[in-house]
Amino acid sequence: MKAIVFDGGSVRLINDYPKPTPAPGESLIQVELAAVCSTDREILRGYRPDFRGVMGHEFVGVVRESDDLGLIDRRVVGEINLSCGSCLYCISGRPHHCSERRVLGISAKDGAFAEFLTLPNSLLHPIPEVLMPEQAIFAEPLAAALRITEQVTFPHRTPVAILGDGRLALMICQALAATTCAELTVFGRHREKLALFARWATTATEPTGSFEIVVDATGSPDSLSSALCLTRSEGVLIMKSTYAGSAQIDMSEVVVREIRIQGSRCGSFEPALELLQAQRLDLPRIQLFAPDDFKAAFESSAFKAGLAF
Amino acid sequence: MKAIVFDGGSVRLINDYPKPTPAPGESLIQVELAAVCSTDREILRGYRPDFRGVMGHEFVGVVRESDDLGLIDRRVVGEINLSCGSCLYCISGRPHHCSERRVLGISAKDGAFAEFLTLPNSLLHPIPEVLMPEQAIFAEPLAAALRITEQVTFPHRTPVAILGDGRLALMICQALAATTCAELTVFGRHREKLALFARWATTATEPTGSFEIVVDATGSPDSLSSALCLTRSEGVLIMKSTYAGSAQIDMSEVVVREIRIQGSRCGSFEPALELLQAQRLDLPRIQLFAPDDFKAAFESSAFKAGLAF
Repeated sequence: MKAIVFDGGSVRLINDYPKPTPAPGESLIQVELAAVCSTDREILRGYRPDFRGVMGHEFVGVVRESDDLGLIDRRVVGEINLSCGSCLYCISGRPHHCSERRVLGISAKDGAFAEFLTLPNSLLHPIPEVLMPEQAIFAEPLAAALRITEQVTFPHRTPVAILGDGRLALMICQALAATTCAELTVFGRHREKLALFARWATTATEPTGSFEIVVDATGSPDSLSSALCLTRSEGVLIMKSTYAGSAQIDMSEVVVREIRIQGSRCGSFEPALELLQAQRLDLPRIQLFAPDDFKAAFESSAFKAGLAF
Repeated sequence: MKAIVFDGGSVRLINDYPKPTPAPGESLIQVELAAVCSTDREILRGYRPDFRGVMGHEFVGVVRESDDLGLIDRRVVGEINLSCGSCLYCISGRPHHCSERRVLGISAKDGAFAEFLTLPNSLLHPIPEVLMPEQAIFAEPLAAALRITEQVTFPHRTPVAILGDGRLALMICQALAATTCAELTVFGRHREKLALFARWATTATEPTGSFEIVVDATGSPDSLSSALCLTRSEGVLIMKSTYAGSAQIDMSEVVVREIRIQGSRCGSFEPALELLQAQRLDLPRIQLFAPDDFKAAFESSAFKAGLAF
């Protein structure tokens, strides 16, 4: 099968990559659509030096083989963390932090930039009929955005700043607008991108003011000091971005101003699919590329780029 | 009066420093005992480049003048944050984060390494008769230690690590042992200091294991990566130490493991004084120096060094 494979340094299309075989309890999924995420771009920059294999973790596909017969021929999206079921984290309700976990297209598990992938049946979510693949593909980033609401409380009209004007920031902005009564402000560098946020938030190119909750969705370590500066004392700075390398932080400011820095990653798919099904979001158009053009997809400046298999 | 004064670069004893005059709503306090804290040592290393004036913020003294007549001749300890009463933080229940605040001996307010100091009456806490000054002097660091219990929940038998074997770590260890049912482990470099913790905690010189809550009380930015490593995913890393300069942190690990980093500073004096009054703590002996020997006090390796005025 065709697959886009990372060898630890560079990425290339392989036309005869072996088609995976589902293990017991797993399904074989034919990928229809897979989206390029900034995490994929970070992998190319060295964010996951140990990873080898098929990249990609956001996908929509159709189940072709499964020992769960109810899944066969269903269109699905899938959670990306494969847990062991027996470690400290698995037995204490944190399977997504399983210490032995593999992560689709990110860690020790072939991903979604291929014609087929396998995943445990328990991680698959059939898509409501009403959703097109181009909408359902947003389940994973939307779940990650909604994760914030599982970690932090949002009192009525609490001032919240989102740093970043990319796709993750747009997901977060829409997720918070749909599920909280926070007052949202988005800071970004690109006026044309910021225009997409205007329905839900005040927007500006120069970060200013003070906020009880600040969400860093810039994908850059450079924004950390600015984000800290915007966060009120005893406030919360939510870190949504991963990137290669470490960040500099004035930890004394964190201590003296008693700031909470909260790492935030993947969330539950159910609320994301419900929010998508309710058609309450205004999703950006996805720009599709053929697998042969994967390099263009990686380099695309489109709000969201994807590969159609 | 005698006062130990920081000029932005170095510190010296001045014999004829002007005695302060209490403003309306303030008291004049004659200092009996003032303790040297690691924050004082950090100020000498450049932690507070804008500060000029009398150093010191931990003290026990006797009120000599006050417009609150009930305070006169009472032995008191004092909170260190002087707030404006009208800013966003003051009107939202966070006066200790007042944006115009002055901090005794740390920021724009002459401190306790002097024969006299002034403080607003509202910040003074008369000491129960049963407490000696050598015990009451621990009210401020103990309040800072107890602050943790106001910020984070400690489920029954939750594994907690404390990094550091200094005075702040000992306060934190005893405070948590007295007020939570956590299982405490203390990691420090000095076996002879660790011995002081053995009544309340497992102790070790090599950090190992994983903990739901990790308290960094080392006073050094070098411990940050070790502290992060010990913190379980979805766990809490409490930062208690301030120090000059910034720290390097692998923020992707914070994000991916969804760690909460919680800055923690000053706490309420009431619970600290109650805990001291209950005589449930085993306080280390304070080593006293004359003001003329303040340099020896600053350099003392004693668990706690103080100046007797």
